[in-house]
Amino acid sequence: MKVAIQGELGSFSHEAAGRMLPSARVVPCARSAEVFDQVESRKVQAAVIPIENSLAGSVAEHYDLLLSREVFIHREFHLRIRHNLIAPPGVRLEAVRRVFSHPVALDQCRNFLRTRPKVQAVPFYDTAGSVRHVVEENLRDAAAIAPRQAAAQYGGRLLQTGIEDDRQNYTRFLLISRSKGVSRAANKSSIAFALQNIPGVLFKALSVFALRDIDLSKIESRPMRGRPWEYVFFVDIMRGDDDDARNALRHLGELAEFVKVLGVYPSAKSG
Amino acid sequence: MKVAIQGELGSFSHEAAGRMLPSARVVPCARSAEVFDQVESRKVQAAVIPIENSLAGSVAEHYDLLLSREVFIHREFHLRIRHNLIAPPGVRLEAVRRVFSHPVALDQCRNFLRTRPKVQAVPFYDTAGSVRHVVEENLRDAAAIAPRQAAAQYGGRLLQTGIEDDRQNYTRFLLISRSKGVSRAANKSSIAFALQNIPGVLFKALSVFALRDIDLSKIESRPMRGRPWEYVFFVDIMRGDDDDARNALRHLGELAEFVKVLGVYPSAKSG
Repeated sequence: MKVAIQGELGSFSHEAAGRMLPSARVVPCARSAEVFDQVESRKVQAAVIPIENSLAGSVAEHYDLLLSREVFIHREFHLRIRHNLIAPPGVRLEAVRRVFSHPVALDQCRNFLRTRPKVQAVPFYDTAGSVRHVVEENLRDAAAIAPRQAAAQYGGRLLQTGIEDDRQNYTRFLLISRSKGVSRAANKSSIAFALQNIPGVLFKALSVFALRDIDLSKIESRPMRGRPWEYVFFVDIMRGDDDDARNALRHLGELAEFVKVLGVYPSAKSG
Repeated sequence: MKVAIQGELGSFSHEAAGRMLPSARVVPCARSAEVFDQVESRKVQAAVIPIENSLAGSVAEHYDLLLSREVFIHREFHLRIRHNLIAPPGVRLEAVRRVFSHPVALDQCRNFLRTRPKVQAVPFYDTAGSVRHVVEENLRDAAAIAPRQAAAQYGGRLLQTGIEDDRQNYTRFLLISRSKGVSRAANKSSIAFALQNIPGVLFKALSVFALRDIDLSKIESRPMRGRPWEYVFFVDIMRGDDDDARNALRHLGELAEFVKVLGVYPSAKSG
């Protein structure tokens, strides 16, 4: 089985894919659109994509792609994000003067950097890619901040583990494929819908869930592509494929310009 | 008057600041937290920050900072995002083999890059910074994708203008300061609130607006810092400081764990 990810091998997406599908072969793609292309054309059986981080927020591009592409969500997984300092073999902590990483990772390790004023933070396009860079170029004064897996992937050495400021740092990943089959354990649904721009319409739309005691675990509005400042709503409801959920979605269909079910799947946490 | 921005001079934030406050001196800050520090400590009179892009979505960090800091929104502004190809003086379009820019900008110019298969896209941490890089290093085979203003800022030459794929590319910027004064033209309010995690509570919360015919122009839920998967809601309502709005907010206060008014200001567009 092959599973596509966006980004380099050794990335957090790689780690999440390994946790969700331990025996699958991971296919790295440079761009998110390519990940969805691979799934739609059945070149891979599935993909694992980040959808939101507890500190950095939603991955807007992936919401847009879930909406526009023929894919379906089958599972979710919460990965605890741990940042590590990784250097070329033989480079010791004392020798490190430059630390490469993605700006978001650098920002999540500010305490580590603040206590080392001689160390310069260097923004890089990718966490795992920054490990590859310092190791391949054999930079003797540099290290990278990245997932542990990137050290093994590119032959780097772990100088320090768990250097993130905030341990409450999780990323929610989704497993997507072309199949529309629904697991019997499914108790959560992700839905997208658009509403006409008239007062009170969102309130009416949410009433279809409230009237049936269906709980929402997330709501988000995203500008519609090509129609700036008109919004699509993305909602997660804590229901699988039951009568109430089906009735609520039919009711929503009466109010909305369109409704798309993005997936029906087991919730990763209790409740 | 001094106005802080996040990022380099020549960036889209610089352009937006120039459009909103033409006579102000712009103070660039490396990090968003520094921008808010400068405003809170009154080292600058105001700051101009991006809050959402019509293609890339919300700037999560700025929502978090609006919530946690003592600042107030006074104006909004929609900047049309135009990407341009900028090279060191004397470098001609035919000589360009590498194009540096922020990954989001590269992704928004895919058609331009696709028709030039010999040109390699190189991810860089900042759009304006990529112009500075190619000009300062005088790279004879390179150009950068950045706002027009970056060319003037760093002595680059405009090789091609308006190379973005999608013209419906706008970023909404906010002008923030410590002052809590409200303009008489104010017809829009930005509000943050948190709710207990009980079914139907969001529906009840939105009823405070629907019952008073108050229209929402945006809703977004963000994970609460340090409490993953509990959410703060950010809502924009199309009302200034009038009786209905004040009653709705008092009513919301009965239901919410907290309510914070982030700003009351004139809407940038009609309606």
